Amino acid sequence: MDFSRRARTGIPEVVLAEHKTDEQVREALVRLASANGRSMAARCRPETLAFLHDALAAEWTVFADPSLRTVIVATPGAVIPSSGGRVTIIAAGTSDLAVAGEARTMATEMGCDVVAINDVGVAGLHRLVRPLERAMAEGCHVVVVAAGMDGALPSVVAGLIDVPVIGLPTSIGYGHGGRGEAALATMLQSCSPGLVVVNIDNGIGAGAAAALIANTSARNRPK
Amino acid sequence: MDFSRRARTGIPEVVLAEHKTDEQVREALVRLASANGRSMAARCRPETLAFLHDALAAEWTVFADPSLRTVIVATPGAVIPSSGGRVTIIAAGTSDLAVAGEARTMATEMGCDVVAINDVGVAGLHRLVRPLERAMAEGCHVVVVAAGMDGALPSVVAGLIDVPVIGLPTSIGYGHGGRGEAALATMLQSCSPGLVVVNIDNGIGAGAAAALIANTSARNRPK
Amino acid sequence: MDFSRRARTGIPEVVLAEHKTDEQVREALVRLASANGRSMAARCRPETLAFLHDALAAEWTVFADPSLRTVIVATPGAVIPSSGGRVTIIAAGTSDLAVAGEARTMATEMGCDVVAINDVGVAGLHRLVRPLERAMAEGCHVVVVAAGMDGALPSVVAGLIDVPVIGLPTSIGYGHGGRGEAALATMLQSCSPGLVVVNIDNGIGAGAAAALIANTSARNRPK
Amino acid sequence: MDFSRRARTGIPEVVLAEHKTDEQVREALVRLASANGRSMAARCRPETLAFLHDALAAEWTVFADPSLRTVIVATPGAVIPSSGGRVTIIAAGTSDLAVAGEARTMATEMGCDVVAINDVGVAGLHRLVRPLERAMAEGCHVVVVAAGMDGALPSVVAGLIDVPVIGLPTSIGYGHGGRGEAALATMLQSCSPGLVVVNIDNGIGAGAAAALIANTSARNRPK
Amino acid sequence: MDFSRRARTGIPEVVLAEHKTDEQVREALVRLASANGRSMAARCRPETLAFLHDALAAEWTVFADPSLRTVIVATPGAVIPSSGGRVTIIAAGTSDLAVAGEARTMATEMGCDVVAINDVGVAGLHRLVRPLERAMAEGCHVVVVAAGMDGALPSVVAGLIDVPVIGLPTSIGYGHGGRGEAALATMLQSCSPGLVVVNIDNGIGAGAAAALIANTSARNRPK
Amino acid sequence: MDFSRRARTGIPEVVLAEHKTDEQVREALVRLASANGRSMAARCRPETLAFLHDALAAEWTVFADPSLRTVIVATPGAVIPSSGGRVTIIAAGTSDLAVAGEARTMATEMGCDVVAINDVGVAGLHRLVRPLERAMAEGCHVVVVAAGMDGALPSVVAGLIDVPVIGLPTSIGYGHGGRGEAALATMLQSCSPGLVVVNIDNGIGAGAAAALIANTSARNRPK
Amino acid sequence: MDFSRRARTGIPEVVLAEHKTDEQVREALVRLASANGRSMAARCRPETLAFLHDALAAEWTVFADPSLRTVIVATPGAVIPSSGGRVTIIAAGTSDLAVAGEARTMATEMGCDVVAINDVGVAGLHRLVRPLERAMAEGCHVVVVAAGMDGALPSVVAGLIDVPVIGLPTSIGYGHGGRGEAALATMLQSCSPGLVVVNIDNGIGAGAAAALIANTSARNRPK
Amino acid sequence: MDFSRRARTGIPEVVLAEHKTDEQVREALVRLASANGRSMAARCRPETLAFLHDALAAEWTVFADPSLRTVIVATPGAVIPSSGGRVTIIAAGTSDLAVAGEARTMATEMGCDVVAINDVGVAGLHRLVRPLERAMAEGCHVVVVAAGMDGALPSVVAGLIDVPVIGLPTSIGYGHGGRGEAALATMLQSCSPGLVVVNIDNGIGAGAAAALIANTSARNRPK
Repeated sequence: MDFSRRARTGIPEVVLAEHKTDEQVREALVRLASANGRSMAARCRPETLAFLHDALAAEWTVFADPSLRTVIVATPGAVIPSSGGRVTIIAAGTSDLAVAGEARTMATEMGCDVVAINDVGVAGLHRLVRPLERAMAEGCHVVVVAAGMDGALPSVVAGLIDVPVIGLPTSIGYGHGGRGEAALATMLQSCSPGLVVVNIDNGIGAGAAAALIANTSARNRPK
Repeated sequence: MDFSRRARTGIPEVVLAEHKTDEQVREALVRLASANGRSMAARCRPETLAFLHDALAAEWTVFADPSLRTVIVATPGAVIPSSGGRVTIIAAGTSDLAVAGEARTMATEMGCDVVAINDVGVAGLHRLVRPLERAMAEGCHVVVVAAGMDGALPSVVAGLIDVPVIGLPTSIGYGHGGRGEAALATMLQSCSPGLVVVNIDNGIGAGAAAALIANTSARNRPK
Repeated sequence: MDFSRRARTGIPEVVLAEHKTDEQVREALVRLASANGRSMAARCRPETLAFLHDALAAEWTVFADPSLRTVIVATPGAVIPSSGGRVTIIAAGTSDLAVAGEARTMATEMGCDVVAINDVGVAGLHRLVRPLERAMAEGCHVVVVAAGMDGALPSVVAGLIDVPVIGLPTSIGYGHGGRGEAALATMLQSCSPGLVVVNIDNGIGAGAAAALIANTSARNRPK
Repeated sequence: MDFSRRARTGIPEVVLAEHKTDEQVREALVRLASANGRSMAARCRPETLAFLHDALAAEWTVFADPSLRTVIVATPGAVIPSSGGRVTIIAAGTSDLAVAGEARTMATEMGCDVVAINDVGVAGLHRLVRPLERAMAEGCHVVVVAAGMDGALPSVVAGLIDVPVIGLPTSIGYGHGGRGEAALATMLQSCSPGLVVVNIDNGIGAGAAAALIANTSARNRPK
Repeated sequence: MDFSRRARTGIPEVVLAEHKTDEQVREALVRLASANGRSMAARCRPETLAFLHDALAAEWTVFADPSLRTVIVATPGAVIPSSGGRVTIIAAGTSDLAVAGEARTMATEMGCDVVAINDVGVAGLHRLVRPLERAMAEGCHVVVVAAGMDGALPSVVAGLIDVPVIGLPTSIGYGHGGRGEAALATMLQSCSPGLVVVNIDNGIGAGAAAALIANTSARNRPK
Repeated sequence: MDFSRRARTGIPEVVLAEHKTDEQVREALVRLASANGRSMAARCRPETLAFLHDALAAEWTVFADPSLRTVIVATPGAVIPSSGGRVTIIAAGTSDLAVAGEARTMATEMGCDVVAINDVGVAGLHRLVRPLERAMAEGCHVVVVAAGMDGALPSVVAGLIDVPVIGLPTSIGYGHGGRGEAALATMLQSCSPGLVVVNIDNGIGAGAAAALIANTSARNRPK
Repeated sequence: MDFSRRARTGIPEVVLAEHKTDEQVREALVRLASANGRSMAARCRPETLAFLHDALAAEWTVFADPSLRTVIVATPGAVIPSSGGRVTIIAAGTSDLAVAGEARTMATEMGCDVVAINDVGVAGLHRLVRPLERAMAEGCHVVVVAAGMDGALPSVVAGLIDVPVIGLPTSIGYGHGGRGEAALATMLQSCSPGLVVVNIDNGIGAGAAAALIANTSARNRPK
Repeated sequence: MDFSRRARTGIPEVVLAEHKTDEQVREALVRLASANGRSMAARCRPETLAFLHDALAAEWTVFADPSLRTVIVATPGAVIPSSGGRVTIIAAGTSDLAVAGEARTMATEMGCDVVAINDVGVAGLHRLVRPLERAMAEGCHVVVVAAGMDGALPSVVAGLIDVPVIGLPTSIGYGHGGRGEAALATMLQSCSPGLVVVNIDNGIGAGAAAALIANTSARNRPK
């Protein structure tokens, strides 16, 4: 494991539990938490979450979120210092909430304030405008937009505001272009030139990139 | 050639010139025009258009449009009877005009009144709303939306109006999802459930389908 | 949720249950039915259907169809007003019946009369001709053709009749071009220029588009 | 080169000129013709055809067909002995004629009688039925069907007759599923179980396979 | 169902059980067997086979083969008349036996004598040569070669013999080009020009095509 | 055209000349420059650049860069106000310079200071470290890394520094994964979680996003 | 089975258990072990491993490794003669250990000394350098690098050392380029020209090729 | 440029001219040749070769091979020291000669003795056996097999000999699986487990890897 990743890149190492045994996940979490005070795993199976809770709750504070498939292990009493970064995370539909939540968790771990706007969709742009204006007025540094199916929402959002927008395609969809491929492709072809993207269902990456942008903005180190 | 196609399906046979010799195109146009009074070819090379004009203009009225790559051959003095169908054709950007124009030509050939709305794009929805409202108020039966790149506009339009919308992906784009593949995929994944699509750059097909819908609506044959 | 979608587009919002929890589906159905008198969910798991029946049957009329994976929730006693639209839905084979049925349910919800023609196939065109002629004679406004495997039937039908045809590829098939990809591609390449398509297994979309076309035709609002 | 291929497999070696220099093609043709009395090259550039004619016509009989991109080199006065095989080759459209012609040339070289039926298409099945019945009545052993675009014709033919059918997809088409991919896929997914296929534009292969089947049938060697 | 398919095309209709309910399969088998004396289903789930046996064994002779996933239903005492066709079916490896067996069953149902050669592989060509020579000497009309992984064997066989060869790619394989896609592609690109192919795992189609070729050869109807 | 895009999103509209006529490009540039003082076109053909110079140099200051295929049109004497944003742009190899240059031009147009580091590659990481450290020490807000072929460099850079990194895949490459597809895919799969990407060869988009991030950081608007 | 493969190619035949029955695997292992003293199966299901142990442990020495899904069957007391070949196998991450282990087992069976370096990753190059230098100093003949996700590590390693490097992509990954496709493509596009690759998850193949190279090097048969 | 690559990895840096200007190629060649005594460029346009000859022949020895698209620049009189490595390079067909030649050139530059075997093909295995046996008897360390179309030859060769085999797919082919994709996929799926591959048309890479293996074998540094 890469214990110095956080110091070097500003992003903590996250354990991807998907292809690891429960015991491998536990060991990695403990080693990272021992070094840094906190650690996080994503894409955990339900039984992995249960196993980790049983194995770790005696010594550590354990936050397991089955709907997001994430777990956080922390030194009891430790708090995350605020970075001053402000991130807005938009989920296009109910089915995109889990991936958007993964991004939110990651950005929160990196010290950001996160505003969540849920269940908008291209057809319901009116539902988006008001809360987005409010977030912008509060000084949002960056916006993440999670969308599956036609993946059209991030382009629309990027055409409306003047802060960076990260498109986060989700694997919601079916048939041709399903598993998020259409959403990813349309974001890459976006007519809104400032849009950047991460891979399908990569909530961790979107949250990390957003927090990095927000934190860079917040510390504003002029030379 | 299928001389009875128009009678059977309401759609005239169109000669696709792309993989044919100039002479094959000329012969097909003359045979169809002799039978039906008019005939049309699409995807003509510039030299094919010149050849056809030279070969046919003595006997026929020839309309050649190099920007659309189409040619129409008609009995001098013949007019297209109005079907009463009303079609709106929207082009998302300047680069989509040729494919949208192919659709307009086809719908016009099938007797429809066509309203064209050009160069909108997702970011410029405000430029779309007014002319679209006007077209709807005039009794539009069906809308075609030509869009390349992210292909997001047809979904947006389909979420705004209560007549059928045909998505017409164009091959404008580049890199991953280029050649219209992203546009097609996102239209197929549209969150607006009434959207139907045709193949990439298939302006003839979109125009034919739109005219068929409009003409069916116009003749309103109740039983 | 988009409560005004029906008013704006003529198409009711349908809850896609596939990636939602049972409770999320229940809540969405109740909110939509409370607003509109009826609501519908598609792609329901069997246990979701059972859950919804148990949770809602006391207060609402619940129609759950396990073979189509759909459920409809309605105010007791409410009926769907007839729109006058007439839709024909053809299933190429026995395996295409579920997707065709989804289309039929959607068109019925939108007020259309639906005629179903089942289990024809390219090889059995003689089985198709008679019932199709009967449907056309009764004033059909639009035809949906559901087909998997080689997906050839929609092109054939579109070459025979003069009303719009919607190709509905199904995921029946195997090997190269399986999961409906060959059927979709061949429909997009159709030699019958008026054919339009929806995504693989998108019965809801095909039904919605067909009903929109039929209802536009039926109300025939001349200017 | 494989001089004994014909003796071993019944199929003469054909020189694919596409990626070879003119001189390489000439040398291969001369060596094969010297050994076997005849030789053939396919996919020749126009300038290759001219070069071969100039280089070889003094000593050999040279048949160059620019529309098919083939050339045959033969000992003057040599004739192809009839194998008794009877092959029918159908081209769906005008644009498929070149590939169908390549198949016809190959089958003819292998001693077969070839019947050609051109420009039918799914929509024009009536134009197919009569000449196909005539070919069957004359004792056709095998049918090749060349089709691009939706590639639907081979399945239809295979559902009508009781001799083997070879689907020959052509690269005619555009957009999604273009370059013959949709045609190939739909033939592979055919609902007509006896259909076999060759690769896109592989007229040589289709003609060779058809002639092999016809010649096997004609010599009818019972044991 | 298509009761006249056998009369028209020489190939009996086969029920594909994969996407059908047990009851739908049973009904189809009974109707076809009542009309033709025999009927067959492929791709049956184990429980479907058990259900069919229980439901049909009282009245019909039922042959269920779980390893091939096929079932045959026949009038007790009925026998298949020999067509005189002779088919050789080669399986490249042990994993290809099920698909090869499906082809063998189909060809047997169509009256052919079938010779099976199993478990050869490109590396073990010496194991192939002797039995293949024996089959050719006995008057084999056509060869089917089932191969997954690199799919190289059909090309090798087609380069050795002078009867038609049908490549039958199987879905054995993994990683890039897995699920039979590499095997299919390499067969389509074969350097042996007489090779024809069917879709991945399409044992029914390969068997049907082989039997059609063999039966056409056997009846040798000269004109 | 979208004249207010810059005000709304902080990104000026760029004319993509690739699918437009010279005259369409000229008109768009003049209209945008008249409104905003400056305008820019990308993906210009060489003859388009010559045409624009001839047509516009009398009235405007015209900067045409044939190696980048860009042109900038500006009111004579106008200067770009510095935004305070600092962007570093790295090109992995000589072949990536054009796309990296497009990004540099765009970021410069948006008021940023740009540092360019050229021709590093994974094998030459030692050539990267020194100039990257210098750029970081000078207060770089964001890094763009252009890379084709294996596309490995952006991941490596993102693992070294604590500011946002944008991966810009280029279409340099060949064979499987060529045209930039391997580079894009590997960037999307990056083990460095903060990496975001744009489409292949989308230098404009990468430059715009980088400038947006840098400018957001520079203005550091705390609330 | 190919009993002489080992003698002919230096590589023992390995039984791929994935698509075989337990009984087929057992029989193949016994026949190969009877002929050669040892035999090996890969991709075994857990129940296959249990079955083999129960069936074979009375007569043979059985090494079953559930984490690698391999089993080795050997004559009791038999040892593998050392070939003198020295192979280094690097796993980029914890999730790549199983595939790397398969390669290690294969190389060990072929008589090589294997050094394993685990869990490095591009970001942790410093963890790689020391053990790699030690392996090189000990006279390593060839290096295998197993990597999923972005697949960048093999290129980096190949740029550092002067012995052959085999890239072994693993199916670890998700979304676009997942299942190892991005890793494979980036290795094929490597800027390090000496890198060769095997298919995704093909640990057996990587181990066999590495051992072949090492053994060829070790026996150094000068002429 | 990476001047120390040769020292570090044993492989000289090769200039890929495809996406570079003539001047960039010239400059790179001169700088590398000045440092190392020799340098090489690949994928040169014909006019690049002419330009380089004119620009460099006064000072350097220039070997330009238009059929291979390579150029070598060397200090006059310099010779390549023999490494003792022995490489065999097989080209399946005439069309594969250019790519095989690129591999030969690269291996020669790295000091190896190269034996070339040309124009074999799967059907002509008898033409391969004799020269391959001779090469093996002379102490060949490694074999490269270049093949397009079905790409079957490398697997066959790998099943016959006990030294490492590198599959080199070429872009010869057409239709489905064309541009070398089928050849690459079938090599990756090879049933001969010791086969390794490089990307399509990557003759440089195959030659470099082969020379690295041969040179490692030749120096046989036991520890």
